[in-house]
Amino acid sequence: MPVSTVSSLNPPRRLLFGPGPSQVAPQVYEAMGKSIVGHLDPFFFEVVEDIRRDLRTVFGTKNPFIHVISGTGSAGMETALSNFVEPGQKLAVLVSGYFSERIAEMGHRHGASVVRLDKPWGQNFSEAEVAAFLDKEKPHAVAFVHAETSTGVLQDPSAVTRPAKAVGAITIMDCVTSLGAIPINLDAHGVDVAFSCTQKGLSCPPGLSPVTVSPAAVEILRARKTACPIWYMDLKLLLEYYDGAHRYHHTAPISAFYALHQGLALVNEEGLEARFARHVKAAAEFVRRIEAANLKMFVPAGSRITHLNTVCVPEGADELKARKRLIAEHGIEIAGGFGPLAGKIFRIGLMGPLATEDNAALLVDALISCLHN
Amino acid sequence: MPVSTVSSLNPPRRLLFGPGPSQVAPQVYEAMGKSIVGHLDPFFFEVVEDIRRDLRTVFGTKNPFIHVISGTGSAGMETALSNFVEPGQKLAVLVSGYFSERIAEMGHRHGASVVRLDKPWGQNFSEAEVAAFLDKEKPHAVAFVHAETSTGVLQDPSAVTRPAKAVGAITIMDCVTSLGAIPINLDAHGVDVAFSCTQKGLSCPPGLSPVTVSPAAVEILRARKTACPIWYMDLKLLLEYYDGAHRYHHTAPISAFYALHQGLALVNEEGLEARFARHVKAAAEFVRRIEAANLKMFVPAGSRITHLNTVCVPEGADELKARKRLIAEHGIEIAGGFGPLAGKIFRIGLMGPLATEDNAALLVDALISCLHN
Repeated sequence: MPVSTVSSLNPPRRLLFGPGPSQVAPQVYEAMGKSIVGHLDPFFFEVVEDIRRDLRTVFGTKNPFIHVISGTGSAGMETALSNFVEPGQKLAVLVSGYFSERIAEMGHRHGASVVRLDKPWGQNFSEAEVAAFLDKEKPHAVAFVHAETSTGVLQDPSAVTRPAKAVGAITIMDCVTSLGAIPINLDAHGVDVAFSCTQKGLSCPPGLSPVTVSPAAVEILRARKTACPIWYMDLKLLLEYYDGAHRYHHTAPISAFYALHQGLALVNEEGLEARFARHVKAAAEFVRRIEAANLKMFVPAGSRITHLNTVCVPEGADELKARKRLIAEHGIEIAGGFGPLAGKIFRIGLMGPLATEDNAALLVDALISCLHN
Repeated sequence: MPVSTVSSLNPPRRLLFGPGPSQVAPQVYEAMGKSIVGHLDPFFFEVVEDIRRDLRTVFGTKNPFIHVISGTGSAGMETALSNFVEPGQKLAVLVSGYFSERIAEMGHRHGASVVRLDKPWGQNFSEAEVAAFLDKEKPHAVAFVHAETSTGVLQDPSAVTRPAKAVGAITIMDCVTSLGAIPINLDAHGVDVAFSCTQKGLSCPPGLSPVTVSPAAVEILRARKTACPIWYMDLKLLLEYYDGAHRYHHTAPISAFYALHQGLALVNEEGLEARFARHVKAAAEFVRRIEAANLKMFVPAGSRITHLNTVCVPEGADELKARKRLIAEHGIEIAGGFGPLAGKIFRIGLMGPLATEDNAALLVDALISCLHN
């Protein structure tokens, strides 16, 4: 093969202050560029075992069943639904944002009988509301979003898991935006099935989706009579590949596993408590500066996701124009709102390497400079 | 965030002479380590457009519909089946290897009425055989594998597409192992739907699956009444993201796209004809040396996949032991057989950077040294 003279990509430098992907540490890029081994190489399974161990820590669980899906967070969502809700079973979904809408949509596609508890986007659900809904519906499973990326709202998991246990429903929790940046504590909350991604709180490139299942839910999986409708996401088959016999399933994206391995090592090195505290401090500084500039946070204090802040677009400002200026003048990416919140909010992440008070200050100054001409 | 002292991964050096993943060029690793941008960043869509253009060349098609699925080759297979075979429709599958078995299995899971034409593993299908089968079955779609990774057998696409057109069936072709190493020529053969991967003939890390659809099959997709059962792989939704409006679907694995972009640039630089010729020369040298050593090729000349060679395990040799010695003593990965071919064949790739006559010699020498104690 001739020596190449073809020039490589030259991506623009961006500061990723959006809801994800978040900024990636240089060490993670370095790990991702290491030589791959085969998907059945013993070294690969050593990497997998390290990842599984470290994921247990960030998820706050002792679940033996913790694996990584070869797709992004949405693939994790579809894995949870397609493995744990069979056609005709009743799936209850707590809907107050874009990603809980997506769960309901996937449930429909997999033939579930979907029942919804709807609240306006930007609100969360009290235990009493969930209990009344589940008592009435008696679903097989209830799904909810821990940290709703579209609104910036945090949901207390126990407000769902307690009433769910009372009616014997399994719980499916979307941890896409929460994992690695705020405490999750699956075991303490009694969550049955949880999924996440790599490109937000863990600050790795997108491409993988960690999924974990409680021992009780593993029994339900094993007792399942029909095959999972999606071969690629069939957790029983994936278990035979990643665990025990290492029976070939698909060719795992080795480089993305290297990146996740390194990202988790950085989390370990800092320590979870220190990492969470750093995110809290950065968020506090962000909110202080936003409010000092007479801007308004969309979500009331107490319901906010620490590292995913939503700010109301002020009267007279053009949301899209401001974001375009941020990219053009500062190389800063933030996001706007979806659906009913389109044009009304900015969605701003302070995650991973960017979650510092200095960066909060830099970002607010840049945002304000781009809000008005 | 504190400066890290955590040490990075140190993967063993491997020469990837298996059926995939294949050896990755340093330039591709370098591209993959570049800073990511957001999944809605205009720069990302420039990268996507370059990839789409270059994929058309290697697929041999002018199809406007050519996109990349955020999963490995198996995700591409499931995308093709779930979008183009609705529940109850008849899917004909030509089965003579592990991956055609997988197509049939996925077809079952998606509710297709699956009819099979079975031949022993290691054989391919003549036009007369396919015509007789399709005339009898009159299926909605017929699926087959171009280069069957489990056996080393190449299937002539026209032997399927001609009889399929005669009965009005759409054709689904698995190009997982063929893309980038041998000619495909989708348009000349009249293939409707094709999918592949990045980690074989294109010599990029695993993680993405290119999929292309003929204009006629796009009309079928648009006319589809039910939603694709898999939200993550719904080509209509993916089209809205990658084409035109760039409506958010999922967070694309940016780094994997960078790698594919660079891998395709290397293919372009070498030129397709030169690349194919290099693979042919390497394979000829490999076969010459194998036969000179009194080893036997599993597939008859004329039906072989140029770059994926299957060699019969000689009497008295231990297939697994030989492969373990190759890894331990030479850092060389090759693969064994699946199912009925377990223990009976070696599967040996000469792809991408490793497809040279020198490497063929190196490999055969190492293999022979590890066959006998």
